[in-house]
Amino acid sequence: MSRRRLVYEGKAKILYEGPEPGTLIQYFKDDATAFNAQKKGTISGKGVLNNRISEHIFSLLGTIGIQTHFIRRLNMREQLIRQVEIVPIEVVVRNVAAGSLSQRLGIEEGTQLPRTIIEYYYKDDALGDPLIADEHIACFGWASQEEMNDIADMAIRINDFLCGLFAGIGIRLVDFKLEFGRLWENDYARIILADEISPDGCRLWDMKSNEKLDKDRFRRDLGGEAEAYQEVARRLGLMPEGEANAVLDLEEHRAKRGK
Amino acid sequence: MSRRRLVYEGKAKILYEGPEPGTLIQYFKDDATAFNAQKKGTISGKGVLNNRISEHIFSLLGTIGIQTHFIRRLNMREQLIRQVEIVPIEVVVRNVAAGSLSQRLGIEEGTQLPRTIIEYYYKDDALGDPLIADEHIACFGWASQEEMNDIADMAIRINDFLCGLFAGIGIRLVDFKLEFGRLWENDYARIILADEISPDGCRLWDMKSNEKLDKDRFRRDLGGEAEAYQEVARRLGLMPEGEANAVLDLEEHRAKRGK
Repeated sequence: MSRRRLVYEGKAKILYEGPEPGTLIQYFKDDATAFNAQKKGTISGKGVLNNRISEHIFSLLGTIGIQTHFIRRLNMREQLIRQVEIVPIEVVVRNVAAGSLSQRLGIEEGTQLPRTIIEYYYKDDALGDPLIADEHIACFGWASQEEMNDIADMAIRINDFLCGLFAGIGIRLVDFKLEFGRLWENDYARIILADEISPDGCRLWDMKSNEKLDKDRFRRDLGGEAEAYQEVARRLGLMPEGEANAVLDLEEHRAKRGK
Repeated sequence: MSRRRLVYEGKAKILYEGPEPGTLIQYFKDDATAFNAQKKGTISGKGVLNNRISEHIFSLLGTIGIQTHFIRRLNMREQLIRQVEIVPIEVVVRNVAAGSLSQRLGIEEGTQLPRTIIEYYYKDDALGDPLIADEHIACFGWASQEEMNDIADMAIRINDFLCGLFAGIGIRLVDFKLEFGRLWENDYARIILADEISPDGCRLWDMKSNEKLDKDRFRRDLGGEAEAYQEVARRLGLMPEGEANAVLDLEEHRAKRGK
């Protein structure tokens, strides 16, 4: 395992060279960061759960015709993906005011927005992922207008689908982050969904209690992070009662055996 | 004078009720602020110069068909303007990287931008005038899509005109801020240019020396603020040699006489 060539290590995931050209292996870590990595920690079992949740959501998105980088899950922490050229823009879709939107624009957290907002952030840790507008993207050529149209269209479709998916399991999809990549075929690049969709990059509130079932528990020191991620997986039908802990126990067991 | 009804007092200007319905008197103060009024000071004679410079530029813009709130200059510190409903968006047009753009996106100050950028900021001092995108404007209804189209079209025309005007007098127009207002006629609102155009809201660099001829001299403690504003007025043909000081001396003289 350790002899595979590491392609990229991010805050929550590692990319390794895949078994075939044009593929990568995406490894999900338990590491959690917040506030541009000023706060660091781990959420035990997060990688296992995010791998499973993201597999589930990307597979479902594939069924409605959203092309993604996901090929198949390989094991508890790894999935096989298509290699893409990541567009250096984080796409944030917001249905309800929360986080930086609430702070920057003075809108109380939890306020239903009059319409869905798509925000773009320039993907640059050193600059703290600054908010950008279409004008900056066009000026600096981070993506073409055609690509941005595709990204916005896909973001809206994904939002519609996910709002439905989460509503079905009693969860309010407050906001979420997407990343897209260019899949090159000859001289033509197609935009496809990349990265992951998991409680790391979504705000998910229980519809009845407004309890946060996402990384805000870590950001805001609310505790119960692992339980929140497990609850999301459980409601998505991915973790029959008791299985989540069993999976993690198994993994720990294997780790101790040095595999 | 002091019995006129004050309509609004801003950081650099005061608006009084005008002589006729639908008009206001715009009074230019010498007060200078920076960094959302965390830094305060005065630039002696600034109000007189900005009144004159803004009159000149708004009049010229009128000749190319840009509708503005400017009616006529009344005296050294006041001009008569049309009353508009200010659109709560500061429009910043950038030709060269400087200030917050350089800081936020890590682009060296002075870099010519590949294309002109129009940025929007939500006009709210308490929030520090946060950067916004078209999406936020549409979501919160701060302006209609039609109004934003008019604003963008006018901003581009104004930029073209001002780039030419300043190039003609050896000045590089780095960036500048505009404000627009709704002029109501019956039930229809037309977008017209409001506020002012002066070295308070423009970055103006001497083309040869790159010397700053604008409020950055105050923001960055460079000194020579009044002289920089006078130099801009002089090059615009508004201040024959010696007149700038004479005007200020006269005003001081009048003030001492208690008029």
